[in-house]
Amino acid sequence: MDLTSIVPLAAADTASVLTDLFLVLVAAKLGDEVFKRIGQPAIVGEILGGVLIGPSVLGLVEVGEALRVFSELGVVFLLFWVGLETRLSEMRAVGRIALAVGSAGVVLPFLAGIGLGLALGESTETSIFLGAALAATSAGITSATFLDLGIARSRAARTVLGAAVVDDILALILLSVAVGMAADGGVDAGKIALALGIAIAFVAFVALGGTRLLQSRPKLLEAPRFAQSPLLPAVILCLGLAAFAANIGLAALIGAFLAGMIVAETKDQTAIEEEVRPLYAFFTPFFFAFIGIELDLGALLDGHALWLLAAITALAAATKLVPAYLAARRGLGRTEAAIVGVGMVPRGEVGIVVASIGAAEGVVDAELFAVVVGMAVLTTIAAPFALRRLSGRAVT
Amino acid sequence: MDLTSIVPLAAADTASVLTDLFLVLVAAKLGDEVFKRIGQPAIVGEILGGVLIGPSVLGLVEVGEALRVFSELGVVFLLFWVGLETRLSEMRAVGRIALAVGSAGVVLPFLAGIGLGLALGESTETSIFLGAALAATSAGITSATFLDLGIARSRAARTVLGAAVVDDILALILLSVAVGMAADGGVDAGKIALALGIAIAFVAFVALGGTRLLQSRPKLLEAPRFAQSPLLPAVILCLGLAAFAANIGLAALIGAFLAGMIVAETKDQTAIEEEVRPLYAFFTPFFFAFIGIELDLGALLDGHALWLLAAITALAAATKLVPAYLAARRGLGRTEAAIVGVGMVPRGEVGIVVASIGAAEGVVDAELFAVVVGMAVLTTIAAPFALRRLSGRAVT
Repeated sequence: MDLTSIVPLAAADTASVLTDLFLVLVAAKLGDEVFKRIGQPAIVGEILGGVLIGPSVLGLVEVGEALRVFSELGVVFLLFWVGLETRLSEMRAVGRIALAVGSAGVVLPFLAGIGLGLALGESTETSIFLGAALAATSAGITSATFLDLGIARSRAARTVLGAAVVDDILALILLSVAVGMAADGGVDAGKIALALGIAIAFVAFVALGGTRLLQSRPKLLEAPRFAQSPLLPAVILCLGLAAFAANIGLAALIGAFLAGMIVAETKDQTAIEEEVRPLYAFFTPFFFAFIGIELDLGALLDGHALWLLAAITALAAATKLVPAYLAARRGLGRTEAAIVGVGMVPRGEVGIVVASIGAAEGVVDAELFAVVVGMAVLTTIAAPFALRRLSGRAVT
Repeated sequence: MDLTSIVPLAAADTASVLTDLFLVLVAAKLGDEVFKRIGQPAIVGEILGGVLIGPSVLGLVEVGEALRVFSELGVVFLLFWVGLETRLSEMRAVGRIALAVGSAGVVLPFLAGIGLGLALGESTETSIFLGAALAATSAGITSATFLDLGIARSRAARTVLGAAVVDDILALILLSVAVGMAADGGVDAGKIALALGIAIAFVAFVALGGTRLLQSRPKLLEAPRFAQSPLLPAVILCLGLAAFAANIGLAALIGAFLAGMIVAETKDQTAIEEEVRPLYAFFTPFFFAFIGIELDLGALLDGHALWLLAAITALAAATKLVPAYLAARRGLGRTEAAIVGVGMVPRGEVGIVVASIGAAEGVVDAELFAVVVGMAVLTTIAAPFALRRLSGRAVT
């Protein structure tokens, strides 16, 4: 019997969104459960749970605004959580090497993506988008894996985080170039320099000024009367910085990470962690499952697409891993450098976002979009397995 | 400078939704802060914060799917929280009187709404919608006020909760009748009886079966390996029952309340409350602010609309308060019965949902919609003030 026939319009809308949220959470957690039971990385289970209920397989949920927002908040609270466990001083200690890793990990994949695009006979605009999609690292996936493995505070994990911030700032430039060329064929160097300046000023000002403010007034978050605990002031800071970062063209997760680092300077940090944990636990599965939901298996089921997927994935992995490893070797041991290299490989949601912008601009077609999403999912699924092996060896 | 010019499309979408969520949370909490400082009910401050940033005044946020979903989850987690603090046995103790209060509080407002509509020269369909909008109680507002006042576990609070469940089941019937008449002029009695049967069976089965299941297996929620704590299994149950309730035409909050009552039977209830609190604290402000955001002050700024608003609000308050008070007097003292009567008055989001369904069906015009929303806001704002006064006297 179709119950919806007796339910009025607006109520039916609510019902369908709540049902989707329920199904996504259940699918992600079932995947998590199965993968934990067979001793495999839980994140991969959550992504595959998303694939299962997504349009590719069962088609139980549609990609709508609500799921997209929940996914975005998933990675925002994930990086907020990571930031809470990070001190500015620890980031500074890895600053130079993170800068080297981040820069090295952007240039080569970008050029390789452009080269592959041109070799395949794509237009310059499309090739630049492919380059940008290959250049973008997802700090989210790697951070979650590091948390899972209990090495989130290791030097290698810090280096990857720092490199991801550098990477995202550079990716902002590449994406601005790509969009500029797709929109009107021209690139406004002044505009891009301005965007770059704003991004760097934002990160530096927030990281230095914010942590200093809370160091000098460690009870600031407890000042408002509306808050029985520092949770809501902290969450407001997180959402505010995430929104600001997104508004200036950075990934929202950068703002959330900075917010976490600032809040970590507050007086009762452990209590805040206890309170943020439920938000992180609730939202993050939507982030992982959504990556799987966006995968279009149908579009990948032909010879040409599969070949393209294999080529792009191999290129994406190699051009990120090797330069990042070599750059990291300048200051880290072999295993640590390998962890950094592998940690930079997952493209996760960032690659998907770049591809969808290209699709919206009309320069990335349906097949290439599916392939880039496939590449993002494959690099994302592969990394946790590799990181687990590596972390078995000594990590400092 | 317009930063959005340098930000690509999909990223700009994310930025605007995150910005809206940030603004709504800040506005709600600023309202909360101001009202706490001047010694007035915090909920009213949160609603007025929403009015301030809504389209009526500053126009900083738009009503979109994301805000609507966050508002819905706000009331879902609010009632889940209330359910966590409620035992089935306590609800049974007030069962008969809640049934009387709920029924009494539906019939009169419904008839009064129809009468007023017909007297104003509206069509039968429109008048029935007006009746249904006047009949629907919002358990959310009253529950939040009871929590605020620290009397959430009182007999009066339980009675209002029970009555709200009864009320919602009856409102389902009225709304089905109203939609049936608006859609094709006919009412399918069999369909409505079926909907009623499903709703009652759902509430009874879940309330009795669910609590019994967790009583016999109090560690059930800790069984899955994906969960480091019982939080996610509990939240999945909450979303699942909320979605199911919405799918059979009940308010989602009924499902959430039942889920909370079931989870309250688990072994480590205090630990779960600690973990649900952050979700409740994060989402609930969106619910209150959203009520304010939906208010259209502009449409109310003319003589006819104001007169209509005054009449409908007075009618809504009187026809709910008096029958509920009289019904409650059969088992409760004067002050308690008065608390029950006042507690039934707020129409909150339920009146707004009914009106928006009517608007979608084309039988509620823009002025009447604005007036019904205004009535919902006024009854919602008035109740916390009155409840505070009453709760100053002895409550058991």
